[in-house]
Amino acid sequence: MAMTRRNFLTRVGQAGGYAAAFASMQSLGLLPMKATAEESVLAASGIGKGIRIAVLGGGVAGLASAYEAKKLGYDVTVLEAKPHVGGRNWSARAGDVVEFVDGTKQPVTWSDGLYQNMGAGRLPSVHSNILSYCKELGVPLEVEVNTSRSSFLQSDKVNEGKPFVQRKVINDTRGNVSELLSKAVQNGSLDQELSSEDKQRMTEFLKVYGPLDMSGKYKGSDRADIKQYPGAGAQEMIVNDHTIPMHTLLDANFWNGVLFEEAWDWQATMFQPINGMQQISFGFERALGNAVIKDAPVTEIAKTSSGVRITYTKKGRSEHIDADYAICAMPLTILNKTKADLDPAHKTAVAAAAPAYRSAFKIAWESRRFWEKDYNLYGGLSFTTQGPSPIWYPSAKMMTERGVVVVGYMDEHDTKFNELTMDERFARSRASMEKMHPGHGHELEKPIYDAWKQIKWNEGSWVGAMSAQTYETLTTPDGPIFFAGDHTSHIVGWQEGAALSGKRAVQMISDRVKSKLA
Amino acid sequence: MAMTRRNFLTRVGQAGGYAAAFASMQSLGLLPMKATAEESVLAASGIGKGIRIAVLGGGVAGLASAYEAKKLGYDVTVLEAKPHVGGRNWSARAGDVVEFVDGTKQPVTWSDGLYQNMGAGRLPSVHSNILSYCKELGVPLEVEVNTSRSSFLQSDKVNEGKPFVQRKVINDTRGNVSELLSKAVQNGSLDQELSSEDKQRMTEFLKVYGPLDMSGKYKGSDRADIKQYPGAGAQEMIVNDHTIPMHTLLDANFWNGVLFEEAWDWQATMFQPINGMQQISFGFERALGNAVIKDAPVTEIAKTSSGVRITYTKKGRSEHIDADYAICAMPLTILNKTKADLDPAHKTAVAAAAPAYRSAFKIAWESRRFWEKDYNLYGGLSFTTQGPSPIWYPSAKMMTERGVVVVGYMDEHDTKFNELTMDERFARSRASMEKMHPGHGHELEKPIYDAWKQIKWNEGSWVGAMSAQTYETLTTPDGPIFFAGDHTSHIVGWQEGAALSGKRAVQMISDRVKSKLA
Repeated sequence: MAMTRRNFLTRVGQAGGYAAAFASMQSLGLLPMKATAEESVLAASGIGKGIRIAVLGGGVAGLASAYEAKKLGYDVTVLEAKPHVGGRNWSARAGDVVEFVDGTKQPVTWSDGLYQNMGAGRLPSVHSNILSYCKELGVPLEVEVNTSRSSFLQSDKVNEGKPFVQRKVINDTRGNVSELLSKAVQNGSLDQELSSEDKQRMTEFLKVYGPLDMSGKYKGSDRADIKQYPGAGAQEMIVNDHTIPMHTLLDANFWNGVLFEEAWDWQATMFQPINGMQQISFGFERALGNAVIKDAPVTEIAKTSSGVRITYTKKGRSEHIDADYAICAMPLTILNKTKADLDPAHKTAVAAAAPAYRSAFKIAWESRRFWEKDYNLYGGLSFTTQGPSPIWYPSAKMMTERGVVVVGYMDEHDTKFNELTMDERFARSRASMEKMHPGHGHELEKPIYDAWKQIKWNEGSWVGAMSAQTYETLTTPDGPIFFAGDHTSHIVGWQEGAALSGKRAVQMISDRVKSKLA
Repeated sequence: MAMTRRNFLTRVGQAGGYAAAFASMQSLGLLPMKATAEESVLAASGIGKGIRIAVLGGGVAGLASAYEAKKLGYDVTVLEAKPHVGGRNWSARAGDVVEFVDGTKQPVTWSDGLYQNMGAGRLPSVHSNILSYCKELGVPLEVEVNTSRSSFLQSDKVNEGKPFVQRKVINDTRGNVSELLSKAVQNGSLDQELSSEDKQRMTEFLKVYGPLDMSGKYKGSDRADIKQYPGAGAQEMIVNDHTIPMHTLLDANFWNGVLFEEAWDWQATMFQPINGMQQISFGFERALGNAVIKDAPVTEIAKTSSGVRITYTKKGRSEHIDADYAICAMPLTILNKTKADLDPAHKTAVAAAAPAYRSAFKIAWESRRFWEKDYNLYGGLSFTTQGPSPIWYPSAKMMTERGVVVVGYMDEHDTKFNELTMDERFARSRASMEKMHPGHGHELEKPIYDAWKQIKWNEGSWVGAMSAQTYETLTTPDGPIFFAGDHTSHIVGWQEGAALSGKRAVQMISDRVKSKLA
């Protein structure tokens, strides 16, 4: 995200108590940071008694808001426009329909038990808040395999378009880099940087790191490419010493596929709920009981003398809720179209952010799991440089017969996929699979094109860049109306941001309740 | 393993048909290698009818031998000395006893449901044969997390003995290497190696790879160390720009902990059976039915005019089996002590290999899973340079309250742990945990020291280096006696080697049966 880096410390006072004091002490090095930890709303038990909160939007931010509010005794109601909770926390399966704003409907017809997480698909182990919710809500998790060394990297520009295995690209890259550095160390060109002792140690280290042979050459290794795997009896390992030259690696530009596993929120260990990400929403819904009203689109947000009046539609009738506070956890795209009694600054901010929403899509197919048996490829991502990418292999139900695989998770405006017919989209997606796993493109069946910019009641995958002022306004309440959603966090597009934003909204409301009592 | 690399192609004829022709064609580049694939024994259906095979030893090699033989119609009996099958495929849990040859007994008293894989603990996804057995035998698998970026690396020599998080060490190492190489590229010292275009591309690549800033300096990144994680509202990410200098990294010598995840058989994705590795043995045992005789140590292996006579003890009585063939899948340490009618070459080979067995141990403790909640550490390995290492966190039943953690998986001769008292061993192991996770050493309870060199009926963890001639002899039958075990493969210490050796033994017997019929 190309968001302006705001001064952290000056924001502490304005943003309210939530975690800020603790966080600023950490940033100043006053407290040791052991690990990320889930935050708790700091408020007196039962502070919410007799106070009504309307939560607008039943995605993860809205659900977490309502859940935290309910724990503190608030009388809470969640209004969700769709027939199911979760928002982008959605695991599509047979019987579900992907419904676009233009009326296009794609019924999901995958085999029994198969699903795809169309929105959020990963839980990093450093996202402590959403992980804690899983535990609290009784949502069992399994490992999400984000990286498999058996996955592929493909570019039309190199290797005659044939894919390389990730283990080869990663390890040949390090091997080439090590060989070049070893030469530089030995030819004296880094004598300004390294003591003579460190030059010696560096040379030895690079032999391990590359690995390099005794003369400092990279000749491949079993990390990168094994021509013949070892077996019983006479069958010895034979390493492929045909390594990829640095020149070719530079042509290929595989760096995204080489480095994605190092991004802080993509690093191992990652998780996913067993049976789909949506189990998290269902967990919240169980805990909230009849506080959740589904199929209930909000039609008006009004301020009243005592708080807010939220009007919504249910079974074709207009209904309303009067509440002391509202937590607006709707996508800004939808809020921007909803009649809302916001002050000019907030109206401007919403109007500025709404068009900035990104248009990520996933194309998901049912298929035989040929990648598992035929390629030893269990989970992980393969990247192609020219077509729909990545291929995201399922971590769920591995070693069964069939699964749902994503072939193409990109932005439809960046790729102009929004200008294609549905058939063209699927043809390109299938072609990507065929490039990566020749002979297997035809095994893909029952495609679904889930483009979040077109999805009814979402109209965007996540917010893109916004100005510092817009962000500041959207994270500040407008009278009785508070805002939640990953777009009110610095973890945009992640459930952790949504969960934290929900806690923060309840913290701010509770701080206000407390100040009124004082 | 420091084994002489033998000439592969000259061995093909001698070693028999099993996979050899196929493998040699692959090594010559005549066939494309898509992935590792499980091997099948090539023999006529029912070829074993009326032919009796005695399998000596019910570890994975013996069980796989018996299973393959049974599929071909052989009349098979497995003799296992212990009260349970599996050998080093053993998941200790409450009620089990670790029994040493000197009579030492350690009863396992961990809480209900907890276990530790004392021997084999990982299934690489490229070990296709053992994975296929899991599928065939109905043994459900889960992901084994071999690498967590939240794991630790510790050395007394650096950082005042405090551990570094693995993500920092791995990414700061690459950052330092990239900065040095970027300097060398720019100061012209690699002009012999790189064209001017590639110099430019190399410089740009290193900015991504490091990552380096615009001036080519490494200043840390969110891949390596985040001082403040991003949150809701004002809480922005703050990257720690205090990176570990290359000099310190060279002092620390963390390379084992940095690179282990790249070893071909330690690369993601890895698996483990749900509820313990021993589920594989139990699966074989179910399939073999009453062909398995447990608590039945072999006391004599004799050749007869029609095959072999195997004498064993059962309930204090001496019994025997007459069979056409024997597959000896006992550890060579045990075979070397057993009265056996082997030819001089085989006797010499067994006697040469037996003392070469290694003496790996694991120290396992029950503990609260403080590493998960307090350190976001789910699975993976932490390494310490001076004490018992690594710490191997359980991938099983993550997010529950208690687990069994290994603190020290080393060789007791290399470390002189064999010279310590049990209390001293446990004290050192606990101290390692205290170094890595200060304040948590006291949470370790109910330690078990499983040292395979001392385990009754094993007396060794896996075979160490042996001469080419010894290996050649041990992989060649002695009349009606065939040999199996990971020690007859080039995948020593892995179940894949054991499984392949079992298939190979049945292949060789079937080839002989076929040649007799011809």
